[in-house]
Amino acid sequence: MATETTEIRVAAAHQVQARLREATAINGLDALVATSPENFTYAAGAIAPSMRTVRSRLAACVIPTGGETEVIVVNVDAALLRERACVDTVNAYQEFDQHPIDVLADSVRARGLDSGRIGIETSYLSYDDHQRLAVALPKAQLESADALLAETRVLKQPAEIEAIRRIGVAAERIASECVALVGLGDTERDLAALIEEHYAAAGGERLDMLVVASGPRSAHPNAPATDRELQDGEVVRIDIIGTAGNYYSDVARTAVLGEPGEELQRIYDLLLSVHERTLDALRPGIPCSDVFQIYEYAMRDAGLPAYHFVGHGLGVTLHEDPFISASSSRLLEEGMVLCIEPLTMLDGRFGVQIEDEVLIKAGGCEPLTRADGLLRIEA
Amino acid sequence: MATETTEIRVAAAHQVQARLREATAINGLDALVATSPENFTYAAGAIAPSMRTVRSRLAACVIPTGGETEVIVVNVDAALLRERACVDTVNAYQEFDQHPIDVLADSVRARGLDSGRIGIETSYLSYDDHQRLAVALPKAQLESADALLAETRVLKQPAEIEAIRRIGVAAERIASECVALVGLGDTERDLAALIEEHYAAAGGERLDMLVVASGPRSAHPNAPATDRELQDGEVVRIDIIGTAGNYYSDVARTAVLGEPGEELQRIYDLLLSVHERTLDALRPGIPCSDVFQIYEYAMRDAGLPAYHFVGHGLGVTLHEDPFISASSSRLLEEGMVLCIEPLTMLDGRFGVQIEDEVLIKAGGCEPLTRADGLLRIEA
Repeated sequence: MATETTEIRVAAAHQVQARLREATAINGLDALVATSPENFTYAAGAIAPSMRTVRSRLAACVIPTGGETEVIVVNVDAALLRERACVDTVNAYQEFDQHPIDVLADSVRARGLDSGRIGIETSYLSYDDHQRLAVALPKAQLESADALLAETRVLKQPAEIEAIRRIGVAAERIASECVALVGLGDTERDLAALIEEHYAAAGGERLDMLVVASGPRSAHPNAPATDRELQDGEVVRIDIIGTAGNYYSDVARTAVLGEPGEELQRIYDLLLSVHERTLDALRPGIPCSDVFQIYEYAMRDAGLPAYHFVGHGLGVTLHEDPFISASSSRLLEEGMVLCIEPLTMLDGRFGVQIEDEVLIKAGGCEPLTRADGLLRIEA
Repeated sequence: MATETTEIRVAAAHQVQARLREATAINGLDALVATSPENFTYAAGAIAPSMRTVRSRLAACVIPTGGETEVIVVNVDAALLRERACVDTVNAYQEFDQHPIDVLADSVRARGLDSGRIGIETSYLSYDDHQRLAVALPKAQLESADALLAETRVLKQPAEIEAIRRIGVAAERIASECVALVGLGDTERDLAALIEEHYAAAGGERLDMLVVASGPRSAHPNAPATDRELQDGEVVRIDIIGTAGNYYSDVARTAVLGEPGEELQRIYDLLLSVHERTLDALRPGIPCSDVFQIYEYAMRDAGLPAYHFVGHGLGVTLHEDPFISASSSRLLEEGMVLCIEPLTMLDGRFGVQIEDEVLIKAGGCEPLTRADGLLRIEA
């Protein structure tokens, strides 16, 4: 499992880098500098772990149109990146003694690009860091490469799709497996611990945001597990958000302990029909706002309140373009991977959610996962 | 456990807000706007979960010198924040329809502060968001409040110390407990799963970066658990990094399966004596660089290579001021909480680390946790 995950991760990085070089050249840039955790991971094929927990440990992945790929990372992460990053050079800076922006400026200069056009992430780079880079490279043109990165990321490469498929399918299976292992008197945390264990066994690296929410807590959109005991007739909402080989899973299932009440079963069935109508609408060329409208109409037919979006792209981040909302005029394209997640939250009572992953293909979509009913926990 | 964690969390938030109001007034600012995950959490007493996973979901905590405290959060997080945030108002913005920076600007205007001095985090706020805020509030003075926040955070309030102490003591206990539950043939992941389970049972919210690294992997500074099996005579390095009630634990222990070899035992004992000499040096008034020098001399005496730092502050972030390094001239003060973590990494062979948490008090320090030898795993 671990070996396969590695092979897919490395293949994805190389496919991504080829696309990024092309896009960088087409945009008239000399080099692209990815500094956000997700774009660093996307471009380098590996996470720089401490950039997520210690923000001053900025990491940069440099993809020039010509020349070597490079990551600039804090010394602490260098050994791990030498093992994992799919780039030509790992350039470590000394924490406290060297500022990462200065090391980046040196690298740009060493490449002879100090009068060049450098694509940076202006939506990520802090105001302070941007000022420092502009001072260090006064002749360079610093241009926003946010759109370039977003546009490249939205169309998944074959190995990226394979990475997402594997951990998504695993998440779906794990939800079913783990609800079969708990019962009355077990807590949300007990179920969460089981899911964590199975997720790790399936090659998962970490669960960023695992929702295991029972009873009235199931109506909170982002609710981590607590010591609350599972109770008869109550909903348990599960949302399995984590990564394997840098790519996310985001699959949600709604379970019930014992027999579902009439209202719960009715709402679930209505939501499942909304889900199916939404999935049926997906195909290359349709605007996201049209898909959202189909969802909205279906919710109205079902007598349920529509949420402000019903889906989102999935990749090295959890939520990314395209968003399936009223205001997104973007057209779906082959190679996009989406999560479709209709939900109904009855505040103070219970929440129902169905979330599946789908790949947009010629003429329609291929579900990577597929909910088919309330999961049942034995009383 | 959960109730106590909540009480301490709420007390910490109120103590922190009182200090922030004072500091904001002393700095001649009209309001402070915390937008980084850590400073939002620090000021509001609660995490806005999705700001960590979806960066466009900016969250802001507004602490004015006079008037109500407020958080501005994406609608998705609003229910949770209404339950958990320790502020007067939870102001939810509609994702996709409203830009959080515009909602923040409206709030500043509604407070009559649009010609005021507003403290913002220029080291966090992106270049794009800074530009947008400056355009929305053309008469306001946007000033960096990074130093103000860092200076306030470095001296812990009593309830913050209590929060750190509880989860730190738990992490220390969990390391001992869990190594006693594994043996030959168990994997790093098996041990990690046990630690995760015990950490959750102790009130922990999540483990951000749990290191369980055996054999040669123990020499990688940030190595998550893998399927590698624990082997006789090998080191298992454990670093328990997570939070409870918003505050971090960061405690590292080195274990050995079976009998330690002579070299491992010798290096561990030397490192423990370095650790003790470093702890003995801690007292209010000593510069961090002097503590580092004492550590460096002790490592030289021991014949071990010094690392580039030996300690760091701990709070709502894992690594924060003060850093115990050669270049930090800052003086230690009563009320700081530090991690002291001497380590020796023999690349390709094994790594040894000892990390304890200490509180700086009059005349010296109080260890919150205290390593006293190699942990032993039965062969």
